[in-house]
Amino acid sequence: MDDRGPTIGVGVIGTGFMGKAHALAYRTAASLFPLAVRPVLEMVADNDRTGAERAERSFGFRRMTEDWQELVSDPKVAIVSVTTPTELHHEMALAAITAGKHVHCEKPLATNEAGARRMMEAAEAAGVATQVGFNYLKNPLLGLAREMIAGGELGEITSFRGIHAEDYMADPEAPFAWRLEAAGGGVLADLGSHIIGLARFLLGPIVSVFADLETVVTERPIARGSAERRAVTVDDIARLTVRFARGAGGTIEASWVASGRSMQLGFEIAGSKGGLVFTQERMNELLFYRADGPQFRRGFVRIEAGPEHPPYGLFCPARGHQLGFNDLKTIEVADFLSAIGGGEAKGPDFREGWEVQKVVETARLSAHARSLLPIP
Amino acid sequence: MDDRGPTIGVGVIGTGFMGKAHALAYRTAASLFPLAVRPVLEMVADNDRTGAERAERSFGFRRMTEDWQELVSDPKVAIVSVTTPTELHHEMALAAITAGKHVHCEKPLATNEAGARRMMEAAEAAGVATQVGFNYLKNPLLGLAREMIAGGELGEITSFRGIHAEDYMADPEAPFAWRLEAAGGGVLADLGSHIIGLARFLLGPIVSVFADLETVVTERPIARGSAERRAVTVDDIARLTVRFARGAGGTIEASWVASGRSMQLGFEIAGSKGGLVFTQERMNELLFYRADGPQFRRGFVRIEAGPEHPPYGLFCPARGHQLGFNDLKTIEVADFLSAIGGGEAKGPDFREGWEVQKVVETARLSAHARSLLPIP
Amino acid sequence: MDDRGPTIGVGVIGTGFMGKAHALAYRTAASLFPLAVRPVLEMVADNDRTGAERAERSFGFRRMTEDWQELVSDPKVAIVSVTTPTELHHEMALAAITAGKHVHCEKPLATNEAGARRMMEAAEAAGVATQVGFNYLKNPLLGLAREMIAGGELGEITSFRGIHAEDYMADPEAPFAWRLEAAGGGVLADLGSHIIGLARFLLGPIVSVFADLETVVTERPIARGSAERRAVTVDDIARLTVRFARGAGGTIEASWVASGRSMQLGFEIAGSKGGLVFTQERMNELLFYRADGPQFRRGFVRIEAGPEHPPYGLFCPARGHQLGFNDLKTIEVADFLSAIGGGEAKGPDFREGWEVQKVVETARLSAHARSLLPIP
Amino acid sequence: MDDRGPTIGVGVIGTGFMGKAHALAYRTAASLFPLAVRPVLEMVADNDRTGAERAERSFGFRRMTEDWQELVSDPKVAIVSVTTPTELHHEMALAAITAGKHVHCEKPLATNEAGARRMMEAAEAAGVATQVGFNYLKNPLLGLAREMIAGGELGEITSFRGIHAEDYMADPEAPFAWRLEAAGGGVLADLGSHIIGLARFLLGPIVSVFADLETVVTERPIARGSAERRAVTVDDIARLTVRFARGAGGTIEASWVASGRSMQLGFEIAGSKGGLVFTQERMNELLFYRADGPQFRRGFVRIEAGPEHPPYGLFCPARGHQLGFNDLKTIEVADFLSAIGGGEAKGPDFREGWEVQKVVETARLSAHARSLLPIP
Repeated sequence: MDDRGPTIGVGVIGTGFMGKAHALAYRTAASLFPLAVRPVLEMVADNDRTGAERAERSFGFRRMTEDWQELVSDPKVAIVSVTTPTELHHEMALAAITAGKHVHCEKPLATNEAGARRMMEAAEAAGVATQVGFNYLKNPLLGLAREMIAGGELGEITSFRGIHAEDYMADPEAPFAWRLEAAGGGVLADLGSHIIGLARFLLGPIVSVFADLETVVTERPIARGSAERRAVTVDDIARLTVRFARGAGGTIEASWVASGRSMQLGFEIAGSKGGLVFTQERMNELLFYRADGPQFRRGFVRIEAGPEHPPYGLFCPARGHQLGFNDLKTIEVADFLSAIGGGEAKGPDFREGWEVQKVVETARLSAHARSLLPIP
Repeated sequence: MDDRGPTIGVGVIGTGFMGKAHALAYRTAASLFPLAVRPVLEMVADNDRTGAERAERSFGFRRMTEDWQELVSDPKVAIVSVTTPTELHHEMALAAITAGKHVHCEKPLATNEAGARRMMEAAEAAGVATQVGFNYLKNPLLGLAREMIAGGELGEITSFRGIHAEDYMADPEAPFAWRLEAAGGGVLADLGSHIIGLARFLLGPIVSVFADLETVVTERPIARGSAERRAVTVDDIARLTVRFARGAGGTIEASWVASGRSMQLGFEIAGSKGGLVFTQERMNELLFYRADGPQFRRGFVRIEAGPEHPPYGLFCPARGHQLGFNDLKTIEVADFLSAIGGGEAKGPDFREGWEVQKVVETARLSAHARSLLPIP
Repeated sequence: MDDRGPTIGVGVIGTGFMGKAHALAYRTAASLFPLAVRPVLEMVADNDRTGAERAERSFGFRRMTEDWQELVSDPKVAIVSVTTPTELHHEMALAAITAGKHVHCEKPLATNEAGARRMMEAAEAAGVATQVGFNYLKNPLLGLAREMIAGGELGEITSFRGIHAEDYMADPEAPFAWRLEAAGGGVLADLGSHIIGLARFLLGPIVSVFADLETVVTERPIARGSAERRAVTVDDIARLTVRFARGAGGTIEASWVASGRSMQLGFEIAGSKGGLVFTQERMNELLFYRADGPQFRRGFVRIEAGPEHPPYGLFCPARGHQLGFNDLKTIEVADFLSAIGGGEAKGPDFREGWEVQKVVETARLSAHARSLLPIP
Repeated sequence: MDDRGPTIGVGVIGTGFMGKAHALAYRTAASLFPLAVRPVLEMVADNDRTGAERAERSFGFRRMTEDWQELVSDPKVAIVSVTTPTELHHEMALAAITAGKHVHCEKPLATNEAGARRMMEAAEAAGVATQVGFNYLKNPLLGLAREMIAGGELGEITSFRGIHAEDYMADPEAPFAWRLEAAGGGVLADLGSHIIGLARFLLGPIVSVFADLETVVTERPIARGSAERRAVTVDDIARLTVRFARGAGGTIEASWVASGRSMQLGFEIAGSKGGLVFTQERMNELLFYRADGPQFRRGFVRIEAGPEHPPYGLFCPARGHQLGFNDLKTIEVADFLSAIGGGEAKGPDFREGWEVQKVVETARLSAHARSLLPIP
């Protein structure tokens, strides 16, 4: 937090849930993290002028525009943050890369594997830094989980069960939205990409998948309360059986019709010597079991996040005081800025976003084939 | 608890974990439930004489034998309880049915579908009552769950996630045992049958299955500490993707290598209007969500078992005082005695045991084919 | 469970909640525990003949009577179990002791300290075995907790917070009942005695107390729905601040108007090196913290009851399968029978019941004095 | 978040845990809340120049000083935030008030009641706005709890049990620190003030108190590992029995030697119709019980924080995504800025800080007297 280097201009495209979260995270990261570059909120873009103006004022952007291409080509913008609906990511990110910008893109990276690959290849060819918005991976306790697994604390990993379930589409009268467009990709792309990314973060590459994809609500009103309905073709629930390159098998489930669940992003991992259980619903807790010591006092330990789990201590010096959702986004941004400043690139970058997309796409093919398929 | 009718002789084959549980349950059921027939512990059989004698004394059986066939043909024995390893069920149950006995058999019913079918057909032809030992279904809160589903409290059911995971085989040095014999059937038959039975209990027939079966520990010592090893060919983990006749999809997982888990028999069910969550680890609690009432106070309700959930009140008149594992076996026995006495046959009977076996067997075929298969 | 000695006749006075629980426990204890004496349900007494007859039949008592004095003086009855309302304990127990019987009495032992003392003194003078029905102490996990404390696992104990809260009197329209008679003693005597007994079981003698006693519902209908009301003078809530002879301080709370709570009998204990948390609502779990090992993986361990916590294994050989309320009563009875048969007297006996009564009585005096008082 | 009014200069005294939290909160509040005044980080003061410079840089203060009096008298500073050890609050706050500044002071407000009263009186006479740093009260779910109580959802309140326990002083070798100075006030002042403030927030004034205060570790090393020791005279544990003006009774406990607890700030409230349970360890959950509807599905509802609990939605539009510790500080600041800008003064202000101090001081007197005392 001492001497901070030169400023770097940030441009954010989109001013919705994620646009706001990105802007806030860029502001906060610089206060909390010792960074080699200091972000400045240079410009915000929204094709709705009112939204752009409001975001400019409330987040303290220097400028705003209705035209994202202006933002992408602005010489003072060095980082482009793409927070628009998925089908727009590809064009925007490629334009930003072409303009030599570092690109921070929300997940899922693209609507299909080919698009994600082009984005990854362009970024790697251009040598710009990239980041995909899998913010949940930034939880200090998941970093701990990953280290425990890598360090052999669980022994040989034998099983993974991962879930990302919410209920924002559970009501059959919830209206059609961009997430329901075929290009949007359904729940497998929207929430499934988070839990696939998490599975890979903890256990490495996935080599095969069987998938069951299901559309539960086959038509929805075009607007809240409207009698006019529109057919839904994308999946509301996805159930995957996977195998990891390391040998372990597992299941991955995604649902946005899971009544009662607001943030059931979680997993249980079993190994020959121990186990781990986590749910984002209680994101400051990690349950850890280790099959050693006297039998009569074994059991899952409830580890609470604290300063011994970096970078928690930058937010709060006292254990158990709780990080929140926005704090994860701040860590994501700090990691990205660190990589841009020459530090370790912790990712997930566009290559990782593409790897996730491959799992998503193979899962779709598997669901059609009703059969297990290898991930290319 | 008022006037109880004639006595009925019970013969129990086997004196291990389940033999003891059955004997205890027959003794207790008569004290707690108002039954039309009164069970008498007539005879116990164990090919180990010491075990048979000890069981005779401690449980108060009138007689004991080393020869199960003597028990089966004894005129004073009207109910035969089969608690031996799975591969013995078929012969013993058929002999008992032939002798005109009612048969209470532990799960899984048989080592394969054909055997289970013969047992079911023989029992139905003979007109004797049957019961399979899926004791967990007897939890009063699962009765409530079933009623809630049937009564439409959750709306249209959209998803099921069921698990039965324990860790008694997690240690790679845990020795070979009868459950690991090919005939024993692996975890899918041993624990999977419980959660398949529970899925059917709550949601009805399963019509298709994709399965991933995995042997994690491929050889084990022949005895604790022995250097001699024996190959294991049965599954340690089973992951099923299923579809129910009612339309909903789901997943079912069974594992006996789930480090840290002693009794993770649970499920989460989602419907268009609500959800249910349960784990046998906290068997006196059922979590229930319903999407109605003001949004600001919605959430999962933790329902504690109480006398308002029959037959809890026969065990204890006060809510939240907790039933235990053995109490479920007592209810199982009481239900069976009630059916024998002319009351409602609540099951699960041999037909249901056969239905479960069909799912198990189709799952095995699916795992070989790496493809989704219909249940015959 | 091998060779069991001579039979011993049991007489139970009372056929309500506890009468039934006692009868069941005597029946079951002999099946599960290796006992030196074998209980026989010799006689049951209830001044309501119908109840007595029903209990005789359903629990298999050899005889019944409407006259408890007949039971107490019966030569075949060697153990008298007193399960009537508190104000009757004194007379019945003294009569039984005079007749040379071993006495098993429900809690609280008496309506006042003087009565409890007379019962204790009489029993000790007569040399009969006694047992008070603090069944919750029989939880195998509380035995573990006590051992951990005694063995120094928590370091020096610094604090205790104990609670027994239920809600069966929370409804202001719940009618008057014997527990509300001045002689019954209010919640401090009814539920408070459980948690006081538990505090003593874990941490030893209490030497001073400050108490706040409160009657929340000052009059109640004489029967459900009746317009006629009767004044209530006993406490609905009791809040105690205590100090233990070992030096630690603590609080103890009892309430029967704790809306939403059915069995909140629990505690949290802190020591210089660790902590313990328990609630009877999840009676098969004990949370244990120990301040050692690397900081980053410390936390409360959730220990599940298993065969490594005797006598759990007599009920079930598999961890996490859950004991229930009635099982605790069975252990209580087994311990009593063991003591009668010459084994270790684990208590709690009448002396312990009297010690608890002294805390109750001093707490009442403290509440009047609004000041801290020493326990005599 | 639309048109924001004039800027207002903020000066923060202190750069430790709370200094950082305040600076961050002033920065973030302006981004998230629609405020009438826009805070500018004008100046930071720390008598350690290095700390002051570091804070200036990392949080983006315009200026820094080693002399807090310079900050207090600076004409561009309109808000003074006091985050120093408790014994310094009085002088600093009075100086700021004299200079006409609005004052935001950490808790506890002062080291004694007289000091707190002077601060309150001075502020009210000067007409400046004040805020005390009871940040936990800003949890949206506690706002909901308060509304539920006020709206009669629980019926008549009958009991409160409040706890604030942590373990940062549990290790007897933890060194002496300013919190252990007699002037610092011990755990009753440090953590107890939080839970007393919360009790008052939910249930209103407290009218009497009995207290048991205890010093568990009577001497500590003067520095980590030092052989030199210093006597500790302040309380490590405080146990209060209280009565509220509304009639209900309750207990309040504070401990900083509660091994295993990092943030056990919680309560259970019972009323004639319902109950509430909360712990800051799971600060995004509130358990709510209501004694209505059919008995068989009653139980505590786990309410997760969401946009339906303002101002959660300003942080995140999706339920269950979790607020964190720093977010509460942001709400505290936003509320203060709102009051300064002419909006509702939600407090807690210096008058409330003084009221809490009175409870603390009377509790100390009660502990000496070993007797119940009225709050003046």
